[in-house]
Amino acid sequence: MENKVPENFADRLINAIDEKHNPSVVGLDPRIEHIPEHLKSKHCRDDREAVADAFIAFNKAIIDAVYDIVPAVKPQLAFYEQYGHCGIRAFEETISYARSKGLIVIADAKRNDIGSTAEAYSAAYLGEVRNSSGSMIRSFDVDALTLNAYLGWDGVKPFVQACKEYNKGIFILAKTSNPSSGDLQDKKIDDKTVYEEMSHLIGQWGDGSEGKRGYRSIGAVVGATFPEQAKQIRNILPNSIFLVPGYGAQGAIAADIVACFNPDGYGAIINSSRGIIFAYMDDQNKNSRQFDTTARSAAIRMKEDISRALAFFSL
Amino acid sequence: MENKVPENFADRLINAIDEKHNPSVVGLDPRIEHIPEHLKSKHCRDDREAVADAFIAFNKAIIDAVYDIVPAVKPQLAFYEQYGHCGIRAFEETISYARSKGLIVIADAKRNDIGSTAEAYSAAYLGEVRNSSGSMIRSFDVDALTLNAYLGWDGVKPFVQACKEYNKGIFILAKTSNPSSGDLQDKKIDDKTVYEEMSHLIGQWGDGSEGKRGYRSIGAVVGATFPEQAKQIRNILPNSIFLVPGYGAQGAIAADIVACFNPDGYGAIINSSRGIIFAYMDDQNKNSRQFDTTARSAAIRMKEDISRALAFFSL
Repeated sequence: MENKVPENFADRLINAIDEKHNPSVVGLDPRIEHIPEHLKSKHCRDDREAVADAFIAFNKAIIDAVYDIVPAVKPQLAFYEQYGHCGIRAFEETISYARSKGLIVIADAKRNDIGSTAEAYSAAYLGEVRNSSGSMIRSFDVDALTLNAYLGWDGVKPFVQACKEYNKGIFILAKTSNPSSGDLQDKKIDDKTVYEEMSHLIGQWGDGSEGKRGYRSIGAVVGATFPEQAKQIRNILPNSIFLVPGYGAQGAIAADIVACFNPDGYGAIINSSRGIIFAYMDDQNKNSRQFDTTARSAAIRMKEDISRALAFFSL
Repeated sequence: MENKVPENFADRLINAIDEKHNPSVVGLDPRIEHIPEHLKSKHCRDDREAVADAFIAFNKAIIDAVYDIVPAVKPQLAFYEQYGHCGIRAFEETISYARSKGLIVIADAKRNDIGSTAEAYSAAYLGEVRNSSGSMIRSFDVDALTLNAYLGWDGVKPFVQACKEYNKGIFILAKTSNPSSGDLQDKKIDDKTVYEEMSHLIGQWGDGSEGKRGYRSIGAVVGATFPEQAKQIRNILPNSIFLVPGYGAQGAIAADIVACFNPDGYGAIINSSRGIIFAYMDDQNKNSRQFDTTARSAAIRMKEDISRALAFFSL
């Protein structure tokens, strides 16, 4: 396979974080109602293809505006899937453009299923799929994928195998950032909560996935909105990278995410979606023509906020 | 909305079961390596579009062979998603063809996310999405969707609302059919297992979704491979419809699924995928030209097996 990536995912991610001096991620979650009009006006068709074209134009401009600042982008599948095969085309063009700019792409899909079906998802996102002639090809070919492990090990195994074989990464939901995450995740199994139990499972499943930098390609999703719980999970999973949603629009601030990091300053990547890509809407002038430069400023501000918080709390 | 379905999903499903005298579902999970050669040969391109075209030809033939026998079909998203936007086009054409034949379509996607993102998934599958001109359109527009509720109520709420507004259905994972499902689901929260806890949540969330036939449009996924656990969940959720995977290729037999039903003979739909659509491969002659008639025979056999088991155990 000529396009096999030569390096453990965790090493690639940490090297990219070092290069940009920035552990933050821009979430590419386009919403048609917030896409500036001038990106839509070129397309007069009123259908799903028109939305897909607007998404592609928007995402490319955002990527152009932030690719030298952030190490990675995280497109959320739901926003593309809304528009069926047209939306998935926009997702594919977005991935491809982001990778051409040297960005690591984390697909936020929270996929999950039984073993034989999980194999199909794993092949789609991380590995290779069979063509009609029997040969194997890459389909989405992202760098990493988020997973929901309610189904247990056999639903996770195909992804862990793909991480090894293709040097990809996964982030498994431990404690999510949403207000109701406690409905199940905070319930107690003996002396542990469900999210702690899940974190221990993630630890078992990720054993041996360490790269040269000491971190694992099998990571966890840990919401920034729950810093106390993040601290507990940090203790359970010292060598795992946390993908941390909840910063910005969901209410978490830089001080909240410090618990997600290790004393070495690594171990977490912080995502912001709406707070970056639709920053122009929070701006006093709401100048949609400058949505990209406003996004760039927001991404720089986020980088500086995180950097300051990490420096302050590591004193 | 002109194409709003006029009836509660549970009523529609139970009426369809009555009409076909059959509570079974055919899983449309195409795998290119098992699609008969004569369906592929028309397409000489070696790319994802060729696979998509073969899937569409295959699914249409399967639907033609079983639509008068079964009330519903269940396409598994993973098998389509493997082929990117081309695969999703095949998924869309499959849905549309199945509905044109009067079949209920259950998309097995196990989607899950935080509230604002769950809204996007809900709009994609059950509701309406916004177009670039601001008007609302249907995108996938299936009858029901499977969900994973690890994230709790706010991730489920948009789907419950769509069930009400558009007369759609959801099936939430309780106890799944795979060997490792116990890794998390069998762990004990106080005196209840995680799958019982989840079943109680499904009960709370589905309250008020009953149709005229007494069943709810908010159902549960309960694996046929765990009949004892199914009995427990039946007690927790007396008015919920169970979507039951695991029959056939995964090893469960008709006697195993009896526990999923209520004494009234309703309350469950049983899925078989490989055992029906690729029945020709288990056949002595392995005649791939007759894959459709072999699938039809397998679907009839499954109907009869279930009917006999239900009659025998209700004696």
